[in-house]
Amino acid sequence: MSEAVTACVLIIGNEILSGRTQDVNISHLATTLGGWGIQVRHCRVIPDVENIIVDTVNEVRGAYDYVFTTGGIGPTHDDITAECIAKAFGVELVEDPDIAARIRVRPAPDDVMASRLRMARVPKGASLVDNPTGGPQGFAMDNVYVMAGIPMIMQAMLSSLEGKLRSGPVVHSHSIRAYTGESQIADALSALQDEYSDVDIGSYPFFRDERYGTMLVIRGTSTDLLATVAARIMAAVEAIGETPEDMGLTE
Amino acid sequence: MSEAVTACVLIIGNEILSGRTQDVNISHLATTLGGWGIQVRHCRVIPDVENIIVDTVNEVRGAYDYVFTTGGIGPTHDDITAECIAKAFGVELVEDPDIAARIRVRPAPDDVMASRLRMARVPKGASLVDNPTGGPQGFAMDNVYVMAGIPMIMQAMLSSLEGKLRSGPVVHSHSIRAYTGESQIADALSALQDEYSDVDIGSYPFFRDERYGTMLVIRGTSTDLLATVAARIMAAVEAIGETPEDMGLTE
Repeated sequence: MSEAVTACVLIIGNEILSGRTQDVNISHLATTLGGWGIQVRHCRVIPDVENIIVDTVNEVRGAYDYVFTTGGIGPTHDDITAECIAKAFGVELVEDPDIAARIRVRPAPDDVMASRLRMARVPKGASLVDNPTGGPQGFAMDNVYVMAGIPMIMQAMLSSLEGKLRSGPVVHSHSIRAYTGESQIADALSALQDEYSDVDIGSYPFFRDERYGTMLVIRGTSTDLLATVAARIMAAVEAIGETPEDMGLTE
Repeated sequence: MSEAVTACVLIIGNEILSGRTQDVNISHLATTLGGWGIQVRHCRVIPDVENIIVDTVNEVRGAYDYVFTTGGIGPTHDDITAECIAKAFGVELVEDPDIAARIRVRPAPDDVMASRLRMARVPKGASLVDNPTGGPQGFAMDNVYVMAGIPMIMQAMLSSLEGKLRSGPVVHSHSIRAYTGESQIADALSALQDEYSDVDIGSYPFFRDERYGTMLVIRGTSTDLLATVAARIMAAVEAIGETPEDMGLTE
């Protein structure tokens, strides 16, 4: 089996840390990258503070195959991600002619254009990440992919990377819904987890249609193995007198 | 002015990293703690893996005044947060009689009760975090507060801490809505940020009622200073021919 390809997500922005903005980028990145065979193993939310961004990027870029950042690449003074990435890599910040050309398509007074051209600055040696919305592109520096924070734009940029990244085995999920408490099947789950160390068995309580239940999620790279473990879990739930529902492969 | 009191949030759970579950705990913790005068400066999402949890807790608990964790304190094999906190502090994991008593109120067969009693295990020396939903309590070990991952339960546990934590000055936000592009006011914002270094000025583009605009958010501990800077920003927006809307103090 090929080796896992891993990623770290960095959400850069005071507005997430203050709670003003509800992050939705982590889950989108996790599911999309996961579907491509890139496993998000770690996420951080950090403020728009230069030394924190620089140090964090340098800490994680060696520890994961890929780093994906969102936020801080707009035209205002608090958009400092590009210069921080340049500092992290010890290179100059330069104006990219392709991004600049895209920005210049829309005319503007000199001072406004100067602010917009902040978005054309990339670390020397970076390649571009396309922006299918038509706005300024993001960029990649080595294994660090730098994208917008606005979810619609981030999602467009990410979609442009499909098929262009190194990937490993995809981790699939197989879910079983059971209207039973977690504790009632805890022993059985624990025994099955010990028996099948190549999968991860998770249990997530829920409340639905006025009833408490537990979603049992088996994760692993072999769908055959997931089916085997799912059948064992179905049997364990039936053994305590409940009727589980096999949801099959899920996100 | 009293000193800032800071916090780090750790979201523990494979289900967030896989994208299966959309996190909503970060924003709730950030706004609630922020309102109490505790600033969330850093968040991490980490998997249910022992050495990662132990190392992360030990890395951040010295760097922030408080650490708040969510997730991994249920009754199943993948709920390992309590034992990881004990390992991080180098103490035993012991059964807390108050939590155990609460669990024993609901009768259950021996094996089910044994699983449920996993939730009574806390690091030796921990104090309890009440759970107003009536379920098993969370706990605090030194400056590390350990709570459930299910948002409703986490929110209940957090609410029980109101007034019991050390706090610093509250960071307020004052917002101005302007139907203008970020670039058009970027220079003015940058100059105002340089002039008023005791506040943070952020600009967040939005699309609403079929129009693009920018929400300008000024953050700082002095509401008088926020009003002063807000008036300057209002004037700057008016100077480019737009009509800004003063939203006043906002979350």
